[in-house]
Amino acid sequence: MTDAKKQAALDYHSQPIPGKLSVELTKPTVSAKHLALAYSPGVAEPCREIARDPENAYLYTGKGNLVAVISDGSAILGLGDLGPLASKPVMEGKGVLFKKFAGINSVDIEVNAESPQAFIDTVARIADTWGGINLEDIKAPECFEIERALVEQCSIPVFHDDQHGTAIVTVAGMLNALDIAGKKVEDARVVCLGAGAAAVACMKLLVSCGARAEHIYMLDRKGVIHSGREDLNQYKAMFATETERRTLDDAIEGADVFVGLSGPNLLSPEQLKKMAANPVVFACSNPDPEIHPDVANAVRDDVIMATGRSDFPNQVNNVLGFPFIFRGALDVRATRINEEMKVAAVHALKDLAREPVPQEVLDAYELDKLEFGCGYIIPTPLDTRLLDRVSSAVAQAAVDSGVARKPYPSHYPLTSVEEVYG
Amino acid sequence: MTDAKKQAALDYHSQPIPGKLSVELTKPTVSAKHLALAYSPGVAEPCREIARDPENAYLYTGKGNLVAVISDGSAILGLGDLGPLASKPVMEGKGVLFKKFAGINSVDIEVNAESPQAFIDTVARIADTWGGINLEDIKAPECFEIERALVEQCSIPVFHDDQHGTAIVTVAGMLNALDIAGKKVEDARVVCLGAGAAAVACMKLLVSCGARAEHIYMLDRKGVIHSGREDLNQYKAMFATETERRTLDDAIEGADVFVGLSGPNLLSPEQLKKMAANPVVFACSNPDPEIHPDVANAVRDDVIMATGRSDFPNQVNNVLGFPFIFRGALDVRATRINEEMKVAAVHALKDLAREPVPQEVLDAYELDKLEFGCGYIIPTPLDTRLLDRVSSAVAQAAVDSGVARKPYPSHYPLTSVEEVYG
Repeated sequence: MTDAKKQAALDYHSQPIPGKLSVELTKPTVSAKHLALAYSPGVAEPCREIARDPENAYLYTGKGNLVAVISDGSAILGLGDLGPLASKPVMEGKGVLFKKFAGINSVDIEVNAESPQAFIDTVARIADTWGGINLEDIKAPECFEIERALVEQCSIPVFHDDQHGTAIVTVAGMLNALDIAGKKVEDARVVCLGAGAAAVACMKLLVSCGARAEHIYMLDRKGVIHSGREDLNQYKAMFATETERRTLDDAIEGADVFVGLSGPNLLSPEQLKKMAANPVVFACSNPDPEIHPDVANAVRDDVIMATGRSDFPNQVNNVLGFPFIFRGALDVRATRINEEMKVAAVHALKDLAREPVPQEVLDAYELDKLEFGCGYIIPTPLDTRLLDRVSSAVAQAAVDSGVARKPYPSHYPLTSVEEVYG
Repeated sequence: MTDAKKQAALDYHSQPIPGKLSVELTKPTVSAKHLALAYSPGVAEPCREIARDPENAYLYTGKGNLVAVISDGSAILGLGDLGPLASKPVMEGKGVLFKKFAGINSVDIEVNAESPQAFIDTVARIADTWGGINLEDIKAPECFEIERALVEQCSIPVFHDDQHGTAIVTVAGMLNALDIAGKKVEDARVVCLGAGAAAVACMKLLVSCGARAEHIYMLDRKGVIHSGREDLNQYKAMFATETERRTLDDAIEGADVFVGLSGPNLLSPEQLKKMAANPVVFACSNPDPEIHPDVANAVRDDVIMATGRSDFPNQVNNVLGFPFIFRGALDVRATRINEEMKVAAVHALKDLAREPVPQEVLDAYELDKLEFGCGYIIPTPLDTRLLDRVSSAVAQAAVDSGVARKPYPSHYPLTSVEEVYG
């Protein structure tokens, strides 16, 4: 970023008041009578009702539309481990996106824990406060254990967005890209450069959506993850393949798909050349992708490409997922966000990109047209149809898979597009 | 409460949407450019600045105007231990009062901890998230240990309102009542019925404001706390006196002050008769006081009385304290709320009650007049002067006592009355 852009970001966060969020009152508080309802003595009644049946918390408090965004700051964006407090602007930013895109209230919690178990204990003890938990910017492999334990211990959805949010948006775009390339997901040979939280989640979800694990080469810093390696944690080990291939050079030969969740410029033009016809390249390292789109397009003209950048087509952006996934989960009081709900979100995103783009979305991006094809395989963040499509698909999947505690609402979404977007 | 009032309280909490609070955005989020400032990539800049200097969190996030209201639900209002989740309406109600009276944003946290130590560990690990912590509805004696440990471990103010908020408002009213009765606090003979969190805090603060510990009889369920008892925890033991008096009947003989923080109707008309001339009676059990004001006034005509009820004069109401105490502490980034700040709040409240009441306050209560005297010893909650007077006194005391990390602001309060009250 330029110095001017950096200063603009600092000004945005500090002027005219610090931060980006405020707590406002939704009920009248003008008179002493109002205050006697909001607080003592009136407030005793909802307390009693919740003590009688904990489900009443959804009726008399903000719990049902409240998500905690929780981090330990150990993997902040691409900045690494800056500690819990330094992650606060990101967590509050996530709160901005939750509210803007899905009408969800959120609070951020920065946890200073001495161990993953301390993190788990801390969050588990306070989890009942909210309707859902979005884990964020927690480094691998600790994030896997933390999420697993919290999903088990909490009766509300716990969702590590860096894993599953990224995976959902990536796989949705990839299914469209493969279709445009004229390839079936079952047959696709996939190279995944990176073996962190997002990479593992992406490949797991890709398999849930039809890919074959034995067609996937995952690479960490030491090269291809294969069955002969003895240095693998259990998460990487799920993707250990029987192969003689050892390097990215070996693995990329004839590959249909490259997924980069690693670092800048790690896919060379020569390696791109070695991929199969109509290669699908998701170079998601941000802000500098594994291969720059201009470089890729100069090397070969049949590549279908996505990045994490907003200034190129096909941005893989988590905001396409998490607000709507939580919206759907909250609206049917899902106890968790399961694989069925994630797959439903993938298909809703995938399908939406195939529909004609409304004029208002074109206007928001000052574009003349946006049509399904190499340059448009994923919906854009300012597409207001996302709220309805993705949330309803997730809610329906929760009901169908038996994790909803409330019936699918008769009109959907409960939070209307108008209400959220004004 | 009548059934109609109970239903009104439930309706208030559930209609048209559940709860009382909402999270709103304070910065523009209309365009993709805005979102690139609020979230990735722009948000990386404030993260870096906070990693460089943690104080920058006050500049770039909401931390400096954000208080957590934290409970385990073990002593909810007068309802007892209903568990963490059932306390949520009270904690959210506290958030309503923080916002309405002092422009402070808050989040509620309900902690399900297996021990006081687990509660302490949990809160200590997440405390950096906020600018201050208001502990609420935690039973004694656990609340003392919890507060002590958190004050020690946190660099932000930690304040158990049931103790200190109650004490500040009570002592402010009592100093005025003693003055009206023509008595000096140093000479006053005090009976405190109740030995819980509020009672211990009230008597400690009363001593800080000039009362003599040896003039105080505190009573728990077993009677007078005296030096011969071997069943006292360390908090009660601070008030053990050398005396032959054993019962309330013994203790009340000739007393100048009765403070009830116990239960309904525990002070009999006969006992009231035994008090000294111009007795000061704070019967704070809610909603049913230790002696009903009508009963007290029928027994003797020289009593100066306060209760916890809004339908009688001189309501001891915590809302007169905590919003403004935190406002003052936050505005100078105090590291704690110390005894000096509490005493400053007492005197600000005491002094304000002696000033002429503005017409707008009379209007808010539909009163013709309200003048310092037996029927008006404590300011009323809708008095908009509280924000300026109490907050500035607390902020100045923080600066003077060396716990402020920011100079006393040149114009005070930072959050103007207009901004808060609109």
